[in-house]
Amino acid sequence: MTATETPVAIVGLGKIAVDQHVPSIAASPAFRLGAVISRHASMKGVPCYSSLGDMLAKEPDIPAVALCVPPQVRFDLAHEALSKGRNVLLEKPPGASLSEVEALSDLAKSNGCVLFATWHSRFAKGVPRAKEWLANREIGKVMITWREDVRHWHPGQQWIWQPGGLGVFDPGINALSILTEILPAPVQMTAAELEFPENRDTPIAARLSMRGSGKLAVEADFDWRQTGPQTWNIEVETDRGLLRLTGGGAHLEIDSRDVTDAEALQSEYDGIYGRFADLLREGRSEVDVSPLRHVADALMLGKRLVAAPFND
Amino acid sequence: MTATETPVAIVGLGKIAVDQHVPSIAASPAFRLGAVISRHASMKGVPCYSSLGDMLAKEPDIPAVALCVPPQVRFDLAHEALSKGRNVLLEKPPGASLSEVEALSDLAKSNGCVLFATWHSRFAKGVPRAKEWLANREIGKVMITWREDVRHWHPGQQWIWQPGGLGVFDPGINALSILTEILPAPVQMTAAELEFPENRDTPIAARLSMRGSGKLAVEADFDWRQTGPQTWNIEVETDRGLLRLTGGGAHLEIDSRDVTDAEALQSEYDGIYGRFADLLREGRSEVDVSPLRHVADALMLGKRLVAAPFND
Repeated sequence: MTATETPVAIVGLGKIAVDQHVPSIAASPAFRLGAVISRHASMKGVPCYSSLGDMLAKEPDIPAVALCVPPQVRFDLAHEALSKGRNVLLEKPPGASLSEVEALSDLAKSNGCVLFATWHSRFAKGVPRAKEWLANREIGKVMITWREDVRHWHPGQQWIWQPGGLGVFDPGINALSILTEILPAPVQMTAAELEFPENRDTPIAARLSMRGSGKLAVEADFDWRQTGPQTWNIEVETDRGLLRLTGGGAHLEIDSRDVTDAEALQSEYDGIYGRFADLLREGRSEVDVSPLRHVADALMLGKRLVAAPFND
Repeated sequence: MTATETPVAIVGLGKIAVDQHVPSIAASPAFRLGAVISRHASMKGVPCYSSLGDMLAKEPDIPAVALCVPPQVRFDLAHEALSKGRNVLLEKPPGASLSEVEALSDLAKSNGCVLFATWHSRFAKGVPRAKEWLANREIGKVMITWREDVRHWHPGQQWIWQPGGLGVFDPGINALSILTEILPAPVQMTAAELEFPENRDTPIAARLSMRGSGKLAVEADFDWRQTGPQTWNIEVETDRGLLRLTGGGAHLEIDSRDVTDAEALQSEYDGIYGRFADLLREGRSEVDVSPLRHVADALMLGKRLVAAPFND
């Protein structure tokens, strides 16, 4: 711990906080863990609070809060922290609705706070170079395959199946966050098929069609029922070669040659906290809702299909 | 017809074009009908085209196009017209997805064209005064009741039941367009229940909960199964009286006293073309996506219920 480390409070001590945020804050030269807020869990050596309001009242010197709670309860907490003049980092997705994120953006602006709506997959190793390589190419077909086993990645988590939990779009939005980062121009959703388990409120699988200018056409296949090997791939055909991101963006191949940046060894969340430090220094917010807007579009114009019940 | 009348072309000669756009263009001192584009219908005394591309090629002096086709096919036509430097008026909703509207906005901007995403209910007689009256009041509960008979208002129309057709949100978005116009601050969707007929892809009924700052809470009840008297009401409780808009915004009551502006005799669509003339004169676009964003939010975070099959 040095004098230049900014204390940050984590709200919500679930899997993502423990696996990613805590280690990345510990590894960061810019931050230290200043407090944790959790109704049920606690952590040794760090001030623990059971409510955000308590922490905000008793820790006036913690200027930043990282929200790692499910999206359905994120808005109230973000609103409370911004209202008290604290800077806020939001886990993905930044809210359960687009209007919420808009309202938080406005509040951050009027209160002079930094709001950072993170998309961790944008910090995967292969992504920056993929973006650079695609910048001057004519893009044709894009194939996204994002198939994983929900039982493995979200063991017993109920919020993902509740309204606002997004279902298979919870991982799928990671692919959309990479897509919207690496493509040089925006795409629009044209069709979607959504499979809802008959006993659940969010989809377990989705197939999306999007298009952009020229020949750009995107097909996405999201499925939460894949056991065995897991697949998180994006393939982009261009006028000058084929780009493949695999492993959720961690590996980059161009025309079947591995061109992953060997020096980019940081974890996605180390990248997030590096960016957060930059934003705080510059007093600048970063809120790109486009991945969430694509999900909303898919749910607005998608065809609903009923799938077998899901139980875990 | 005078020299100062701007010719406008109507694309799509369905019910809304014939009932509203044609008469309002005829009544407008600012516009005249320059052409119609329709695959099946035609109109006496006006140049008729079966494709927009044809019209754009052969009528270089028609600077404005009004799109009255269903939302699922609106994007391509708007894109084509804006690409050829024409100003575009969009019927509501402005697109089948939010990304489409965003892309059209960007295109209009880069091509120096005017884009007007209309919300006809905002031009209902009671709306401007309701907005003015609410501006300085503390708002509590808002109740929206929007119940009509789909068989009467959309006889045999299939597009409303197809993905992207919005179902009961097609009328419901009118209420949301009034709500977002008259409230002094934005609201956020917090919960929704959506009833989908088991044989249809869009909802036939929806109940929405929204909230804003302070005590502001909105409940909306949209239903397409109401035979008999039709209901399009918005009630707003404030710290200084109760406001009621009825008849889809046509009538305004404050504390049970009718205060409808007797001098505001124009039809909603006369109001739309009046505003379009202003926008063209000022070279300014007007694109407020907030009603469509609320619909997308409702479909993203809504709970889906299965209702009885709908046949017409």
